[in-house]
Amino acid sequence: MNVSILTVGDELLIGQVVDTNSAWMGQQLNASGYQVHRIFSVGDTLDSIRYGIARAFESADIVLMTGGLGPTKDDITKVALADYFGVELQFHEPTFIRIGKIFEKYNRPVEDAHRQQAMLPSNAVVLPNKMGTAPGMWIPWNGKVLVSMPGVPFEMKYLMEFEVIPRLKAQFPGKPIAHRTLLTVGEGESFLADRIRSWEEALPDNLKLAYLPAIAQVRLRISGSGDQAAALNAQLDAKAAELAHIVRDCLFGVEQDTLEAAIGRMLQSRSLRLATAESCTGGQIAHLITSVPGSSAYFQGSVVAYSNSVKEQVLGVSADTLSQHGAVSGPCVKEMVSGALDLLGADIALAVSGIAGPDGGTADKPVGTIWIAVGDKQEVQTIKIQAGRDRSKNTAFSSIMALNQLRLFILQRYPDLK
Amino acid sequence: MNVSILTVGDELLIGQVVDTNSAWMGQQLNASGYQVHRIFSVGDTLDSIRYGIARAFESADIVLMTGGLGPTKDDITKVALADYFGVELQFHEPTFIRIGKIFEKYNRPVEDAHRQQAMLPSNAVVLPNKMGTAPGMWIPWNGKVLVSMPGVPFEMKYLMEFEVIPRLKAQFPGKPIAHRTLLTVGEGESFLADRIRSWEEALPDNLKLAYLPAIAQVRLRISGSGDQAAALNAQLDAKAAELAHIVRDCLFGVEQDTLEAAIGRMLQSRSLRLATAESCTGGQIAHLITSVPGSSAYFQGSVVAYSNSVKEQVLGVSADTLSQHGAVSGPCVKEMVSGALDLLGADIALAVSGIAGPDGGTADKPVGTIWIAVGDKQEVQTIKIQAGRDRSKNTAFSSIMALNQLRLFILQRYPDLK
Repeated sequence: MNVSILTVGDELLIGQVVDTNSAWMGQQLNASGYQVHRIFSVGDTLDSIRYGIARAFESADIVLMTGGLGPTKDDITKVALADYFGVELQFHEPTFIRIGKIFEKYNRPVEDAHRQQAMLPSNAVVLPNKMGTAPGMWIPWNGKVLVSMPGVPFEMKYLMEFEVIPRLKAQFPGKPIAHRTLLTVGEGESFLADRIRSWEEALPDNLKLAYLPAIAQVRLRISGSGDQAAALNAQLDAKAAELAHIVRDCLFGVEQDTLEAAIGRMLQSRSLRLATAESCTGGQIAHLITSVPGSSAYFQGSVVAYSNSVKEQVLGVSADTLSQHGAVSGPCVKEMVSGALDLLGADIALAVSGIAGPDGGTADKPVGTIWIAVGDKQEVQTIKIQAGRDRSKNTAFSSIMALNQLRLFILQRYPDLK
Repeated sequence: MNVSILTVGDELLIGQVVDTNSAWMGQQLNASGYQVHRIFSVGDTLDSIRYGIARAFESADIVLMTGGLGPTKDDITKVALADYFGVELQFHEPTFIRIGKIFEKYNRPVEDAHRQQAMLPSNAVVLPNKMGTAPGMWIPWNGKVLVSMPGVPFEMKYLMEFEVIPRLKAQFPGKPIAHRTLLTVGEGESFLADRIRSWEEALPDNLKLAYLPAIAQVRLRISGSGDQAAALNAQLDAKAAELAHIVRDCLFGVEQDTLEAAIGRMLQSRSLRLATAESCTGGQIAHLITSVPGSSAYFQGSVVAYSNSVKEQVLGVSADTLSQHGAVSGPCVKEMVSGALDLLGADIALAVSGIAGPDGGTADKPVGTIWIAVGDKQEVQTIKIQAGRDRSKNTAFSSIMALNQLRLFILQRYPDLK
């Protein structure tokens, strides 16, 4: 089934916002057996949106549209839709009530602008948006469908996952397609590719491997199509097991898992409490760990020791260490681990100190030099890694690499006895 | 002058690569007075590229195209161009020599595939690419032009800056276009819209206002076109000043600024050192603050006090407070501020404690209940806010709202004396 994506908004055309929605939708659709054929981006005018809708329908049965659904004057997608389909905008009471409840919760009055948000094309099936005020709309048309969603990414994602994809599968079923995704950390794409190549070349024609790289992580997705779902799933399970064995040292999870959740489960099953001490990562590791619901069961907390005085006075890093080796050094991160274990009452601690950039590098310690330590009361391990020159990439890379060191430490020091 | 952008590549459609080229080109073109009217993305097939070219020319005199110029099998942009314009591919010797020199430098032999890269449509003016092998092409056509560039971002950027923009300015001098963007925090889009409405309705026809919302923040962009750049800029400055006055309490910056950078400058100019104490935000505030280069000049660090024992033993929150009021309470965040000030040696501290969800809510304190405190040694202010039900949205919202409280506290307690 062919899909066109239509994103609406002047902000896309003048480049104030990068259209990340299309790529995300493309991934999700692909994984469900739908092929994005074309992507169109148009501005916030009636003419442009009408043009976009016409072009999007030209080569696809399914049109997914985002943007232009807010309560403000420049959000005119609904008007364009009503005009294109030759229908009226109607007041949709359940939507108005839903929006009212959101505003009640925030103790804010419902304004005219929100009443406006409940005016919807009369041919639309409303898709309730649990993440915001603007509703999604499913509009059947001549055996085809147009879906309109807000442009705010997490609202669009919610609607795609819980409303749009299930409806597409029900109304536009295709040949069975299935996937298995293995999640790896700490090994670059090309090194993984070298290890995997001969296995990949021997894959049967109905299976395909994709590398989906992110910072310090690579997802390996095996996609397959077949005539029978059961046989396809059995084939994918067997191939995923082979691939898991090839990359076993880097493998931390499958499908929608995350490294921080996987580590959380490892800590929880072993009754280990974790603390972190962060310099250059500035709280990013703690933020990742606490993004997991229920992380309070194993995460004590963190000291973000951005200044040397905090390293010394709060974490107890010795003045000698700081003057002799500097804050970006093995001895410093080692003492940060000890300090965090004591201060925060943890069984395991992770510490990072580095030069995130863009300034602060020296010949000895260029920008991107990162020290990581992980340890418990008996043993502390340190490692130095070299990141790049971009500040935000460096802190993201260091955070993931540090979490991977923690994962490896737990596996080595606290092997699962089951 | 209207421009269409056409990006080519299956990787864009399946979402393996986010199209960042279009946004970058949009910014550059806009700044030079060209308006991107439409963006099209199509796959690597002859039909799709021909379709894209036809559609791109449909509503613009200038078509900028990226992608499909590499040496591999799926890169067929040139074939599609020759076909569309009804010309032949010709061997272009200067390009072949240039590519040969690149391979010489890397001690790699010139392959057939690279000879193929020197085969170009006979109607193309070649734009030498100093960043890679594939050349850019400038193809005049019926008073219009199509420009084809590689999809690799830094190659495209080089060609845009040194070849394409200068040629466009020479051949398609346009009407000036300019923008002013005001950045607001802490007030929702629809409430801002109510305050702005009458001003917006009185805008002259050549100016337009757009709302660009993010979590707890809204960017307000005024766009205008005019015959004379100086008059347009003066008009925009005057209107931006009016709008700034209307939203003055929420306004923290303009153009590409960020809240965390704005707060950083406020702290630095007042020689104030900041610390944070975070519970539910789990380090996200510290992460935002330290994402600003040079933040070590004013940021001491943070205690992420995720467990109550850390709140009590590290930050000195009293056991009485925790048992009587709980960790999510005004008294608790107030004591977290005092503790952070003392422990981390700061002049100002910011503390947050709340129920991020999805679990842990009660009738009294439902999921999304967030307490924020900000203070110095003399005064601590607390506020309770109500976020929603989504964990990651709640922590992002709380972090921005907390930073806004910090901003307001600094403005009130440390007014700028200049």
